[in-house]
Amino acid sequence: MNKSILFKNRPKGKPALSDFEITEIEKPSPKDGEILLKTKYISVDPYLRGRMRDEESYIPPFELNKPIESMLVAEVIESNNKDFKTEDVVSGMLKWELFQTHTGENLNKIDTNLAKPSAYLGILGLTGLTAHLALKHIGKPEKGETLVVSGAAGAVGSVAGQIGKIKGCRVVGIAGSDEKIDHIKEKFGYDEGINYKTTENMQKAIEKNCPDGVDVYFDNVGGETLDAVMMNINRFARIINCGAISIYNEKGVPTGPRLEGIMIKKSALMQGFLVRNHFDEFKSSIKELAGWLNEGKLKYDETIVKGFDETPQAFLDLFEGKNTGKMVVEI
Amino acid sequence: MNKSILFKNRPKGKPALSDFEITEIEKPSPKDGEILLKTKYISVDPYLRGRMRDEESYIPPFELNKPIESMLVAEVIESNNKDFKTEDVVSGMLKWELFQTHTGENLNKIDTNLAKPSAYLGILGLTGLTAHLALKHIGKPEKGETLVVSGAAGAVGSVAGQIGKIKGCRVVGIAGSDEKIDHIKEKFGYDEGINYKTTENMQKAIEKNCPDGVDVYFDNVGGETLDAVMMNINRFARIINCGAISIYNEKGVPTGPRLEGIMIKKSALMQGFLVRNHFDEFKSSIKELAGWLNEGKLKYDETIVKGFDETPQAFLDLFEGKNTGKMVVEI
Repeated sequence: MNKSILFKNRPKGKPALSDFEITEIEKPSPKDGEILLKTKYISVDPYLRGRMRDEESYIPPFELNKPIESMLVAEVIESNNKDFKTEDVVSGMLKWELFQTHTGENLNKIDTNLAKPSAYLGILGLTGLTAHLALKHIGKPEKGETLVVSGAAGAVGSVAGQIGKIKGCRVVGIAGSDEKIDHIKEKFGYDEGINYKTTENMQKAIEKNCPDGVDVYFDNVGGETLDAVMMNINRFARIINCGAISIYNEKGVPTGPRLEGIMIKKSALMQGFLVRNHFDEFKSSIKELAGWLNEGKLKYDETIVKGFDETPQAFLDLFEGKNTGKMVVEI
Repeated sequence: MNKSILFKNRPKGKPALSDFEITEIEKPSPKDGEILLKTKYISVDPYLRGRMRDEESYIPPFELNKPIESMLVAEVIESNNKDFKTEDVVSGMLKWELFQTHTGENLNKIDTNLAKPSAYLGILGLTGLTAHLALKHIGKPEKGETLVVSGAAGAVGSVAGQIGKIKGCRVVGIAGSDEKIDHIKEKFGYDEGINYKTTENMQKAIEKNCPDGVDVYFDNVGGETLDAVMMNINRFARIINCGAISIYNEKGVPTGPRLEGIMIKKSALMQGFLVRNHFDEFKSSIKELAGWLNEGKLKYDETIVKGFDETPQAFLDLFEGKNTGKMVVEI
């Protein structure tokens, strides 16, 4: 038996279970040159919300009545392709299906001795790469500077904060519960944390926790949190627009205070980051991350949800902040 | 007789003549090491509005009941300083006074053979330097790209557009009258122009005039014009936040559509530019600008207002767009 999760309806605001349909399909057979993959882990990520919109973007939108796709870890169980053998484990952009055939193009074989397979969807996957390469190209944190990270307990944020500490920064995290704040301080070495859900005046809270101002802001959420940080930036601050989960579900055009005045006043730099623009650096970046991981300088969290059918709900739970670190579905 | 123009009142919205006071003062005598300066030209600039606010910025705010200051060209008429002799002409940050004494520190002697004195407040002064250095450091226009310039007929914008043409770009200007649009196309070589005052849908007008999208945006105005350009940017676009005259006079916090979504989607870069961060490049930049000027590749406009007492009104007229190019008061 095989199953597929189809995209059934373009959500207007917050996505719902009814936007997905789990359907039974035939188990395919690999043609010449193809491999048959058995899904082991599915990555659910906030950016998938963007592909649910019917508008031109850096990747095409999902098509209605077609399977959703995201990064998966899968095992080769049959191979008609000389580059792959059974029991190889690969990661790549794949369909939300229990079994699927593939040409092997753009799939990466992963080394399960270096780290467990699900790590390749997180700290050694797009989220770790995102944190590492966005700081390398845009944030450029220097020793003694202050780095603020929103979504600090999340998959990208927790890595970003730890790299900030490796670089010698004061690191302040923003997250949505006291448990998460305790956690990022204890496990990831954040110097301070701010619970945005219980803080009345975020601007003042950031000012208090960043007595020397903000030099680098790693923004995973956008919206009002971004506004509050902007009021505290230093001259020559660097702002990484990495995610904007707080506004992804807004209907219509989200508005907020204009930032061009403060950008000029502070000679600040703001830059959008997409990890897919840096494919050529993935190998070297994974190597550096794996080095830190093995030295014990990088820790990570996973929220593992079990069962293929739970994938849509796991995705929805991201927007409720129910995950700690990378959210992965294990089949 | 000597005169001074004092700052009398912090404007809330648009500045008014009543925010200034012209007063007679004593003509000073230079002490040992000082020079006596006679003002020849006064530069009036939109950024002075920022110094009228009582808030921390890159330069301290104007103090009430003290003289306004801006870039001036002045002649040395008495010197007790071995580095200056009478008839030297200097430019520098000076008070709005007919006569003033000065230590000579941070004043630049100007070469009136290379260009007329008022040019050192414009194309060879901060405005020309701003256009040149902001494009060099942030915009980085490449041959075949599309450059959009707002405030295109203004002092900075007209130079920015011409440098874009020198670099081989398609250059589209935004300005506030049909006369200005004709002028930037005829005199400065802009490929197309958009009159924002008579255009109903700026987003569509930019789309039409930039069929290949916008690669570099040199923004002198901020506000809704910035929003409209942002809807047309290409991947890896560079946006120079150079000025935001459209929002300087707004009371309260100006709001607009949030840009973090499009910044991510387009991997765009936005950076605030202040020419004073690049003092060390002024000499080489003036040399390159003067070279283009003498080759006939750079043209410039001046709006010269005569009479010291007209200085406040000339400043106010900037916000009505009454100037074409650099606004200068001749004494």
